[in-house]
Parts: sequence; C-alpha cells; structure tokens
Amino acid sequence: MWLRNCWYVIAWDHEIPAADVPEMFSRTVLGEPVLVYRTSAGALVALQDRCCHRLAPLSKGRREGDCVRCGYHGLKFDAQGQCVEAPGIPIVPEKARVRAYPVVQKNKWVFVWMGDPALADTALLPDNFSCEHPDWRNKPGYMHYDTPYLLICDNLLDFSHLSYVHEKSLGGSAQIAQAVPTIEKVAGPRGDWPQIGIKVSRRVANVPAPPFYQRFRSFDTPLDRWFVYEFLLPGTLLMHSGGRPVTDAPDDLSRAVRLHSCQTLTPETETSTHYFFQQSHPADQGDASVTESIYNSLIGAFNEDRDMITAQHRSIQRDPDAPMLPLAMDSALLQFRRLVAARAQMESTKPI
Amino acid sequence: MWLRNCWYVIAWDHEIPAADVPEMFSRTVLGEPVLVYRTSAGALVALQDRCCHRLAPLSKGRREGDCVRCGYHGLKFDAQGQCVEAPGIPIVPEKARVRAYPVVQKNKWVFVWMGDPALADTALLPDNFSCEHPDWRNKPGYMHYDTPYLLICDNLLDFSHLSYVHEKSLGGSAQIAQAVPTIEKVAGPRGDWPQIGIKVSRRVANVPAPPFYQRFRSFDTPLDRWFVYEFLLPGTLLMHSGGRPVTDAPDDLSRAVRLHSCQTLTPETETSTHYFFQQSHPADQGDASVTESIYNSLIGAFNEDRDMITAQHRSIQRDPDAPMLPLAMDSALLQFRRLVAARAQMESTKPI
Amino acid sequence: MWLRNCWYVIAWDHEIPAADVPEMFSRTVLGEPVLVYRTSAGALVALQDRCCHRLAPLSKGRREGDCVRCGYHGLKFDAQGQCVEAPGIPIVPEKARVRAYPVVQKNKWVFVWMGDPALADTALLPDNFSCEHPDWRNKPGYMHYDTPYLLICDNLLDFSHLSYVHEKSLGGSAQIAQAVPTIEKVAGPRGDWPQIGIKVSRRVANVPAPPFYQRFRSFDTPLDRWFVYEFLLPGTLLMHSGGRPVTDAPDDLSRAVRLHSCQTLTPETETSTHYFFQQSHPADQGDASVTESIYNSLIGAFNEDRDMITAQHRSIQRDPDAPMLPLAMDSALLQFRRLVAARAQMESTKPI
Repeated sequence: MWLRNCWYVIAWDHEIPAADVPEMFSRTVLGEPVLVYRTSAGALVALQDRCCHRLAPLSKGRREGDCVRCGYHGLKFDAQGQCVEAPGIPIVPEKARVRAYPVVQKNKWVFVWMGDPALADTALLPDNFSCEHPDWRNKPGYMHYDTPYLLICDNLLDFSHLSYVHEKSLGGSAQIAQAVPTIEKVAGPRGDWPQIGIKVSRRVANVPAPPFYQRFRSFDTPLDRWFVYEFLLPGTLLMHSGGRPVTDAPDDLSRAVRLHSCQTLTPETETSTHYFFQQSHPADQGDASVTESIYNSLIGAFNEDRDMITAQHRSIQRDPDAPMLPLAMDSALLQFRRLVAARAQMESTKPI
Repeated sequence: MWLRNCWYVIAWDHEIPAADVPEMFSRTVLGEPVLVYRTSAGALVALQDRCCHRLAPLSKGRREGDCVRCGYHGLKFDAQGQCVEAPGIPIVPEKARVRAYPVVQKNKWVFVWMGDPALADTALLPDNFSCEHPDWRNKPGYMHYDTPYLLICDNLLDFSHLSYVHEKSLGGSAQIAQAVPTIEKVAGPRGDWPQIGIKVSRRVANVPAPPFYQRFRSFDTPLDRWFVYEFLLPGTLLMHSGGRPVTDAPDDLSRAVRLHSCQTLTPETETSTHYFFQQSHPADQGDASVTESIYNSLIGAFNEDRDMITAQHRSIQRDPDAPMLPLAMDSALLQFRRLVAARAQMESTKPI
Repeated sequence: MWLRNCWYVIAWDHEIPAADVPEMFSRTVLGEPVLVYRTSAGALVALQDRCCHRLAPLSKGRREGDCVRCGYHGLKFDAQGQCVEAPGIPIVPEKARVRAYPVVQKNKWVFVWMGDPALADTALLPDNFSCEHPDWRNKPGYMHYDTPYLLICDNLLDFSHLSYVHEKSLGGSAQIAQAVPTIEKVAGPRGDWPQIGIKVSRRVANVPAPPFYQRFRSFDTPLDRWFVYEFLLPGTLLMHSGGRPVTDAPDDLSRAVRLHSCQTLTPETETSTHYFFQQSHPADQGDASVTESIYNSLIGAFNEDRDMITAQHRSIQRDPDAPMLPLAMDSALLQFRRLVAARAQMESTKPI
C-alpha cells in the first residue's frame, strides 16, 4: 500500500548527471522506472523509463540535446515525453509518447510526483532545510532496503527501539524505551490535507551520553536528551534532537549537542525501499571530521535497523496472516498507518 | 504434507549452547522458526522464534537469565513463553506470549512436538540407543536438503538404489537391488497409533564387500549382507546392518561387520529438510579412525543421494502432475506414504 | 506460446557425444528435458530425460550399449524408450517406457519433433545449407537467453534495430532504420502449411561499410547493402546479406562482401531460449582468421541484442499488461506473431 498523490524523493541532486554527461539516471519509484535528466538550461526532466513502442528502457539509449533516443529502434522523445522522431516514419503519431512526471528540486532533494499531475503542488514539499543551509553541515546518505516501506516508517515512529536495536550506537539506555512520548497531529498547508503527519516529542532525563555524542565533546555527567520530530506523508522524518548536561541550567545550550536530521522513504516496489537521509550539526560546532563521524555513526545504526527490519520482514513473509499485538508504544505508528490507509482509500475512490 | 502430532528432531544436543553462552539456537521446523535454549538448571526450552508484538525473531535478541528479550522493542519472555516485561508498559497484557513447544532430549537427539501439547507422550520417542551407548561409537552428522522430506523417506525405504546411486560407495553389487526384502508393520506403543512404521529386512547372499567395509578389515571372500531396519513416523530409520564372510558358519560373527544406524528427517519447509544421522560401530571393534572413516563414507554416500533426489525434485517441479509408475520395489515406500496420508487425514479432521 | 508440431534444433551435431563416450547430452526444449545420444551404429536417439518410475533424470545414469540405465533404481531403456530391465522384477510391464522423439540431423543441426510423431516430416526441415557446404565456411555459435523466444523473433524480424543496438558493430548508419523493407509470404512445402514464414528484403544505398566488413577488405567508398532473409516457423532465419561499393557496376560483385547466415531459436522454457547461429562467408574469400573474426563480431553483436532484449523483458515483466504501440517498422514481426498464434490455435483445437 502506498499513496500516489505525493512528492517522493527520487534522488539527491548530485546523483543526477549534468546535461553534457552521456550517462542517464534511472530509479524505480512505486514500481515504475523513472528516468531523470537535466536540460542544457539545467531544468530537471522526469520521464517514464520505458519506450512506448516495444517497452525497452529509455535509459539504455542516449541523450540527444534535451531529448532522449531509445537505443532499440531509435524513437526520440522530447522533455515533455512526446515522440518527435521515429526512423522510417514520416509522420509520428500523436499517441507516441511516454509519461512525464512533475519533478522539482528543494534543498538537494529531487522530488517526483507519481500521481495526478494537476494535483502536484510545491506547497506540499517538506521543509528539509538543513539538507542545504549555511548554518548546518552534513554528509548525504542513501541506503536500499529489501522490505516494504511501511515497516521502516514503523521503525521511525517508535524510538523505543533505540534502547535495544541501537544499544551500543545511537541509544545507550533502557530509559529511552521507558519514556512516554507526546504525540500530536500535523496539519497540512492545504484544506484538503487536514492531517499530513504526526509530531512525536520524546524527552529522556538523566541518561548517559550515547557513544556517538562523544564525538562532539567528552561528557562526564549524564544528559537530558530530546527527540522532537515530525513524520510526514508519504514517509519523511524532520527531527531536532540533542542532549544537555543535567548540571547545566535549562536555558543553557552552550555545552549541548544539537542535531537536525532529514530522512525520507520512497517505495521502490511493494517489497523494497529507497532511504535518503542526513543528520546535520551546527556549522559552528564541529569540523569536517565531526560531519564524517556523524555520517559513519548513522550508517552503522541504520545497518542495525536494516538487519532487524529485514529479519522482521522475512518473519512476516513466512506467515503473512500472523497478527501483531498492539502495545502502547505503537501509538504513533498505528496512527500513521491509519492516515496512509485513509488517504489510499480516498485515492482509490477517486482514481487518477 | 506432514504430520504435526509427532516428535521431530530439531538438533543434536551439542548444537544447543549452554546457559551461559549469549548465542541462541534457532531452526525452522514445519515452516515455524523455533528457538531452543537451556535454562541455568539445564532444562531445555523451545519457543516460537517470533515476537508476538511486531513479529521480529527473538533469536536476534538476547538471553537474560532463563528469559529471552526481543532485540527490537525489548519485550522479555520467560521459559513458558509468557511476556514478563514490556518497556514503558506498567501492566503487561496476559495475551502477550509466544508459543512454547514440548521439548525433550533422548540419546543426544533434541525433539520438539509441533502439534497439540496435550498429546505429547515420550513413549512415542524412537529408540535411538546407539546415538549414546557405551557399547557403540559414532560421529554425529547433519545435512540440509532442498527437497521435500517425503522424497528422502522414499529413498530410505527402497534400498535397491544402493546398487546404482551408491555403486562405488555403500553398494557395490546389482544383487542388492535384485534381492526382495521382507516388509512388516510396526505397531505403536499406544492403541491410538496402531501402526507407526514399517520393518524392512533385506538379505543379500554372496556379494563382494563394499569398499566401505574394507576399513574394518580386509575381506578376501564374498559376504552375506543384511539390512534390517524399522522406518518410523514421522521419518526415522533405525537399522542393524552388517556382513559376514560366506565361508564362516552362520552363527559365527567373529569376522562380521556389524553396524547400527539412526537417521531421522525433519521437514524444514514444504521443500526443504533437515537430516540428522549417525552410523555406529561396536565400541570394541575399530578405533577413532574407523569412526571417522565410517562418518566420511556416510557423508560421501549421502551426497550421492542428495544429488539424485535434488535432480528428481527439480524434475517433479517442472511437471508436478507427471505420474510415477509403481513397481514392486516401491512396496515399502508406498505403504509409508499411505500411513502418513492416513494420519494427516486424521489430524485434519481433528484440527489442533 | 509456442508450437509443438515443428522441428526444433536441440543441438549442433558436435555437441552430441559419440557412442563410446560415457557422458550423455540433455537439453530442455519446450519445458521438457530431452536426452540425445548416438547408437553404436551412429543413429541419433532422443528420449524424454525423465525415468517413468520415480521421475529421476536419465542423464544422471549411464549408457549401456545402445540403451540407457537410470542411475536411481536401475531401470534400463532401449533406443525406442521401452524399459527392457527393472532390477528384481521378472516381467517388466509394457507401460514402463519413456517418450521417444523423432530426431534427425541436417547440415550439422540436430532437430527434434516435440509434437505428434505421426506428423513429423523431414520436408519441413529448413534449408540450412551453409552450415555444411563446401562453398561456405563458418564457426558455429550458441547463446542462451533468459527471455521468451518471441521477443528474439521480434528482434530478428525488424532490422531497424541495427542502426541503434548495433551502431558500432553490425550497423553503422541510421539509413538502415530508415529504409523500408519489402515483406512477402513464404509458403510451406505441404498444403497444410500454407504459410511457413516471411521473406524480408531490405536494401540500403550509399552507406558506410560497417566496422565488421573491414575484415574482408578495406573499403574507401560507401556501399550499397542488402539483407534478404526468410524467417520461418518456428523461429529460423536464413539470410543472404552483403554490400558492394557504390562505384562498382550493379552486376559486378567482385569486390562485394557476401554472407549467408543460418540462425534458429528454440524455446527452452516460457522465459528462456536457445539460440543456434552461424554466419558463413564464401570458402574462396577469406581464410580461417576471417571466419574467426566474423564469429567474434557476431558474438559481440548478439550480446548487444541480448542486453537490450533482456532489459525489454524485465520491463515487460514489471507490467505485463502495458500495451506496445505498433508502428510501421513492426509489420513483419506482427505478421509472424499472427502466424504463430494461428497455428497455436490450430494445435489447441486438435490436441496432440
């Protein structure tokens, strides 16, 4: 289950080659291979990566100016997906075209809109500001999952797993799991999106600094930690997190660790997912080696998640009807799944 | 097709770690992953290897005393499968539990009962005495098959294949295939198991010693050989076999080779199988090198079987409706298949 | 979709071992594994490679004279597929037999008839003369495809792909794609085969010599090129092709490149295909190094085809209901697909 009328991240901007590079970029989103390239003027183009003639992937062809030519029988398509040349055919039929998708870049994330193009509204783009902001620094990350995207949403919506999956990395204390988070609705910017996500605020008092924080400075007292994030449709996490020595005054952040993280999930197929992420630190705290070490911590921790979620997915596949037992900690993830289901239901009754 | 109300071997005892070892043992039986561990008192515990909360495998968690804790969100289960702690939840619901299976060890084989626990009766355990007996010596073996378990039962119920599959190893003569075995019913220890298996007795006169016998002593005359075994539900072979120089008096076993073998098949999935086996020689005949060489012969011969049965399985998968042609040599295997089918039918009408 | 009442190439003659070689040859055709061997008199035998008893592949057994013996339980079959010996069974039942297929060799191709043996008529064999002819030389080739065979037929029936897939190998000019071929029906030798294929003639004037032609001689003028071929049921291409300097008189072939190519496709399964091919040059033009270089060119170009068709096949598998857009260049391939469909329909109403 997934939504179509949403912006999905298909790539980091650096993954899309410049106009003068012959290689083309293609990635599958919601089961559809999508070709993304830049025109000579720098505009982004997203086309269905499948020739309308015999269904060969256009990405096995070549760029010709702002057009692409299929490498099988030579049909040439412009940036709107219209076939403008077919060898040996004087008049190309109007219906010779491939689908073009709305595509937009914001703060280094390249988004495509897989649903009704008339509904694509950039007001719905998430505020992934720290991906590209002079006050913040990060190293962008990408990871591929062989699991459905909702299982990863579940993971991101219940940080109690930090105590167990990430015991030796991001977590470090059973108190994270024991803390009860505050859960609030996030309303959308438009009236037809009354709720676009969930805000989760989890504060944990007087816990040891996780190993990962020691990269900033050496902490010799416990910390008060916080994780405050929005988790937005279709699957984007925007989080402020940090920790402050318990001995410091509540309004004194001088020795605090402060982070901002943008993470987003894009279904590749029913059972595989693209994961784009970064965790930023303030530009005036920490140098390039801190940026690198935060990135490496994240990769390490996200591999722990992927191991667990992949094992969970295999377990579910073995017995797809096995019931899960809802517990208090599932509150946010269940609310998010209901939100996805409700919007999927709306889309299915108004088919695009 | 398989039976549930049976004891299945899940492991050799040495495969289950001691209580103070952090690693946990998990193996799939009848499509269900089962976690097996020992309490500090040494008792065996077998639990469904799937957390009742979000279905993650418990074996990716950790031991805590005689309990196991899930590595995803930290639920803790006791040796009866009851959840005794869930982080952040003051009162754990009664229904938070995983299935516990009856588990028992006999002569180094660890058995689980996958059906109705109320029917689990140790009187039904097979007499695998030579697996652990002062008069016998062996080296335990394990092999994994990517075929349904009944195809391997078939193989063990028709030793005519020794002449062809094992021509150069266990077999050595077409006379084995030509000999007609005696086939008898084996009654169970309880009235509700009127037949639990088949006894097959095959005697072959005046044949060369198989290459494998030469490890005991050098034979310069032909042998009279015998293979006398019970093949019991769900898939256990208990066999006395041997050979005696034809020149020796019938009651003179002084120069005979005598072996006792215990082998058992446990379905992993519909199309894969666990195979546990050993072939024992008398403790007073042959030293450790003989034990090792019997083991190596067995591994070699069982690889020959696996190659053939795997090829047979692929052939069947290509055309699942292709009929087999019953011949006289199939008498025991057809009888066993009818026995399994009849009991499976009983189980399906009294669902557990 | 495929036809059964056809001759399919199962092997080049050199692939079938001589009678005194213990190894046996087996290859799957139309989903059925077929064992092919030679009798001591040199006659070809083709038997279903699956014992009628327990369905083990006969090719895992052994030759015994002109018979084969199953390696599982020892059944022995003669060259007609009749079981002539079953260990321990005094009288072998008449129905103990495996299917024998009509098999014939013509010009180094070994053909089997997978349908009704009564309809097998060698008059239907294609004229693959250059595979074995004193006036022609070639090196035989074989390639395996993980795609349905009809996608490869499509490729061979529309040479416009030469301009794009083989731009740097066999092709070399967009004019090949722009040229409009002549398409004619090919009638069969028997009244019940009113059409057995399609003749495609494509002439391209004044184009550069393809890189591959430079192996014969160095061309310093453009060429007039021709590709004239029959594409016959079930999937055989017989082609005369060549090129002549535009400066030469129309009837002067003294500096022309002339080639004859025989290629044939045999479905292995619904989604995989055997491809047998050669491209011959006149025996009096070019030496062994030319033969080798033509072969290498062909392998290179056929790998280009396989890459493209495999990508096309994956694209189709992702969305099996996606429509293709018929264009003028598809005329021959659509006609051939209709021909196959019509005959498949005939076979399904007169089941064999």
